[in-house]
Amino acid sequence: MLKFYFAPGTCALASRITLEEAGARYEPVRVDFAATQQRSQEYLKVNPKGRVPALVTDRGILTETPAILAYIAQTYPLANLAPLDDAFAFAQMQSFNSYLCSTVHVAHAHRMRGYRWADDPAAIKAMQQKVPQSVGECFGLIENEMFKGPWVMGENFTVCDPYLFTLTRWLKADGVDSARFAKVHAHMLLMADRPAVQRALADEPC
Amino acid sequence: MLKFYFAPGTCALASRITLEEAGARYEPVRVDFAATQQRSQEYLKVNPKGRVPALVTDRGILTETPAILAYIAQTYPLANLAPLDDAFAFAQMQSFNSYLCSTVHVAHAHRMRGYRWADDPAAIKAMQQKVPQSVGECFGLIENEMFKGPWVMGENFTVCDPYLFTLTRWLKADGVDSARFAKVHAHMLLMADRPAVQRALADEPC
Repeated sequence: MLKFYFAPGTCALASRITLEEAGARYEPVRVDFAATQQRSQEYLKVNPKGRVPALVTDRGILTETPAILAYIAQTYPLANLAPLDDAFAFAQMQSFNSYLCSTVHVAHAHRMRGYRWADDPAAIKAMQQKVPQSVGECFGLIENEMFKGPWVMGENFTVCDPYLFTLTRWLKADGVDSARFAKVHAHMLLMADRPAVQRALADEPC
Repeated sequence: MLKFYFAPGTCALASRITLEEAGARYEPVRVDFAATQQRSQEYLKVNPKGRVPALVTDRGILTETPAILAYIAQTYPLANLAPLDDAFAFAQMQSFNSYLCSTVHVAHAHRMRGYRWADDPAAIKAMQQKVPQSVGECFGLIENEMFKGPWVMGENFTVCDPYLFTLTRWLKADGVDSARFAKVHAHMLLMADRPAVQRALADEPC
């Protein structure tokens, strides 16, 4: 059975929703960030990066959200979570997820994890101040250029949807009003209605 | 025929090497960053993010390096650039590429693109100062935990190799001595010997 390392309030939620959508059997294992368990010697053997998510399979351990999402889609094909037989559509899906991980999540991370990129407390504060603008610009691009509707990729639900939903949930704390983005906001509500999403949210703070 | 938008000195090199390795027919189109052509109305129609690379196919335009790399591997299967029939191995490849785009490239970007995440010039300077440490730590992880050798994924060359090579080439300017990472350094020399790499480097500054 799969084992899934996660922490509440992190991007691991995207993979957890996807596991639920796939109907996968898995054991969720909570990593205690308050106790910095992610930096413990024990957890670093699971993921040397000291991050979540990590998915333990019978072949080995996978990390990085876009890789895990595509893997779940490929190994649970009956769940129809990705256009597996269309390389171009699959690449569009991957492109969206790559934008979320390399640009949107990164913009967001400057609010709480600025120490990754500067030591000076004043610089870390300056990063925090720009988060509403940088995250807002990312969601403007998603709203106006990328989102097809009703799901990210159009008529078909894909692994992009749990990932976007996860980052949309961070907007309020990032100082961005999700109501500015009508399509993204409607998507968040649509997602919240899905039983798989509700199961995955059971361990989340709110 | 494919059209490939790139700029010298950017991560577009990874996709260009991969196109060459695949034996793809493509038209390279240089985007003039010195003239900020990437922000021109004309180019924003190609890629609303104002970035490179962008790959124009007969189905539409693809952006984001990990998505383009997997797409080339899938559409040129005879080139053997990815483990296409092994979902776990494919996910490991994607995981590596995702780490490069969301963590390694991002750490590097704080040297020249700090304005994305803060407005204060002192903060931007503080970001620049941390780049040797943050990029060095990323390459330490790659060297010690991820790189299998002689290629990133082991015995088989994959699309991870052009991508790692591209980021390794930035180490010197990032203030990191690649000789600290023996396996990564040897990989850089191995890559430089490949004819496809040499063709792709024709438009690079050095």
